[in-house]
Amino acid sequence: MIDFWVSVGSTYSYLTVSRLKPVEAARGVAFRWRPFSVRAIMIEQNNIPFVGKPVKMAYMWRDIERRARRHGLAPRLPAPYPLKDFDLANKIAVLAESEGWCADYVRAAYRHWFELGHEPGTEPGLSDALRELGRDPVRVVASAQTGRIEERYKRDTEEAKALGVFGSPTFVVDGEVFWGDDRLEDAIDWFKAKAPAPDPQP
Amino acid sequence: MIDFWVSVGSTYSYLTVSRLKPVEAARGVAFRWRPFSVRAIMIEQNNIPFVGKPVKMAYMWRDIERRARRHGLAPRLPAPYPLKDFDLANKIAVLAESEGWCADYVRAAYRHWFELGHEPGTEPGLSDALRELGRDPVRVVASAQTGRIEERYKRDTEEAKALGVFGSPTFVVDGEVFWGDDRLEDAIDWFKAKAPAPDPQP
Repeated sequence: MIDFWVSVGSTYSYLTVSRLKPVEAARGVAFRWRPFSVRAIMIEQNNIPFVGKPVKMAYMWRDIERRARRHGLAPRLPAPYPLKDFDLANKIAVLAESEGWCADYVRAAYRHWFELGHEPGTEPGLSDALRELGRDPVRVVASAQTGRIEERYKRDTEEAKALGVFGSPTFVVDGEVFWGDDRLEDAIDWFKAKAPAPDPQP
Repeated sequence: MIDFWVSVGSTYSYLTVSRLKPVEAARGVAFRWRPFSVRAIMIEQNNIPFVGKPVKMAYMWRDIERRARRHGLAPRLPAPYPLKDFDLANKIAVLAESEGWCADYVRAAYRHWFELGHEPGTEPGLSDALRELGRDPVRVVASAQTGRIEERYKRDTEEAKALGVFGSPTFVVDGEVFWGDDRLEDAIDWFKAKAPAPDPQP
């Protein structure tokens, strides 16, 4: 099992979120989705990758477009960025994780964001995405804003920080940190190299 | 021909510089080495990736170590960073480009830096690297500091900036920018997809 630390609001995470399921099947590896606030960590570490950097921002969209095409994806770019309601979008992911539908929610949020232009955490995309998953938007939005989820969101973000996570997407294998969609294959290779050999036949 | 924009002083460029020759042979592609001042562009664009960001800096060294091992390289990390004499190290690369020995110089500078711990642009590594290449250090250091090389260094940096280059290593194929050692394969694939088909046999 590889921990997949993800924040809805990271641009490059679109690539990982959109291809992780087929990658899991093809490589025979499982990922545990761990939503957290990459924004809290980035602000604390003064790590502002794109805002205020127009050349790098323009490159980022072009690079994502090219990489997406390699994976058979067709996003409409640039997507709205940065997110106005980052924390709500991610608290819903934390709630969803506690209820077992995190991967489905994050995938739906990115599809609405990158393919339909609807910002995560805002209407009408938020309710549309939740209804597609058979979830009641009113219940979900209220539950995501309780103290219990707030606590868990903070605690998981602290856990990410303690592991050395500073960006999204990040893959953690036995304490080894791999940052970026372009390190997904490295993380899987590391995991496979560390895996115990199968028991010998009796 | 793919333009390879490189600044001696970029950490991830070690990976590209060290593996580009075998990659050229294996993939049947040629690269034109284009030294420039990534530092001037990064300062102008307020793009400071590692200095003052200890978590990201520590990750960068670990990531380079792992990637280097995948390529059969054995650097001694962390290497001295950032460089004190960045401009001299790169003006020598510009001089070397004008004289046809740029790739050899940059490779030697990185080998001394990442494998022996000698900062580029400073003694004793600088003279050692130049002598290994059969170059007279006194002549090279003096020539690299003339107005002609200063002009060319500035002009090439402006050219990089006009192309949208903001980091090193960067590969440019027909105006398409690929940033990072981990985009080398994408750049080659792009180049090959754009290449005209061979002439049909008569």
